[in-house]
Amino acid sequence: MLNLKTLFTLNYGLYIVSSVSKDGKVNGMIANSVEQVTAEPVRLAVTLNKESLTHEYIKQSGLICVQPLTEKANMIFIGNFGFRTGRNFDKFARISHKLNKEGLPVVTENTAAYLILRVINSLDLETHTMFICSLEDADILDASVPTMTYNFYHQELKGKTPKGAVTYQK
Amino acid sequence: MLNLKTLFTLNYGLYIVSSVSKDGKVNGMIANSVEQVTAEPVRLAVTLNKESLTHEYIKQSGLICVQPLTEKANMIFIGNFGFRTGRNFDKFARISHKLNKEGLPVVTENTAAYLILRVINSLDLETHTMFICSLEDADILDASVPTMTYNFYHQELKGKTPKGAVTYQK
Repeated sequence: MLNLKTLFTLNYGLYIVSSVSKDGKVNGMIANSVEQVTAEPVRLAVTLNKESLTHEYIKQSGLICVQPLTEKANMIFIGNFGFRTGRNFDKFARISHKLNKEGLPVVTENTAAYLILRVINSLDLETHTMFICSLEDADILDASVPTMTYNFYHQELKGKTPKGAVTYQK
Repeated sequence: MLNLKTLFTLNYGLYIVSSVSKDGKVNGMIANSVEQVTAEPVRLAVTLNKESLTHEYIKQSGLICVQPLTEKANMIFIGNFGFRTGRNFDKFARISHKLNKEGLPVVTENTAAYLILRVINSLDLETHTMFICSLEDADILDASVPTMTYNFYHQELKGKTPKGAVTYQK
């Protein structure tokens, strides 16, 4: 028995994952594949599709900004980051954000926090790369609203899982 | 700024993670650190403390059973698997379960599904090991109740995070 519906019983959050290229261009995407993997020292794992532009920028800068979405984020906001490439579109053009000292974009609407990560190791997973990261800088932005779970995105917002996501099923 | 409270804005599920030793002994523990990492082929990552007995058994058998808890699981049930070692206590003695063909324990109460994993790679994370696994066998056990999130465990059940967990903070 290999019932792939069991994979939908795993729980995740939903995050904006962004980075900066070597010449200062920014890009971000939506991902569920972020987790803390050790406590002392603090290490996080971020797993992204190799074909994504954000993956390319992370390879260049070694830096990642992770931001948990709050339940205030709607499908228009999420769709700005997901379901399209940033190769011919500035995803941050109409999004409230600031650039940190390394040029990483920190979104200041619909996000609960920012976590600035530095890649210290990576694991090749064929279609995806898992980046193992230290935590360099982090703060809470909005604690007034619950963070968005992947279940909330699917059930309340009727969101889809795009091809290329770690949890995609045909 | 390095506000470690930001780590609590990441979302997880809560799972029984169990294994079998080379001489057929079984043990299980509670963990939040389970995620799917690629879709084609399906691969999952399970990150466990090196000092845990379940970690020792996984090293011996190369097999893991992951079971998402449902919201029906109470603190007595969870406490049976968490907060204590199986080195001098049979955690499955009073828990409804069956053994699969490889001798892995599949808990049949308070779990939404079972996922039988085979370790195909591992990543050393100092205090923890991340096991990268294929999915060998899986089915739904109870779809009538929501699966338990780590937030539900903390907020509704007032559960604690024990030392040794990937998300532990002093």
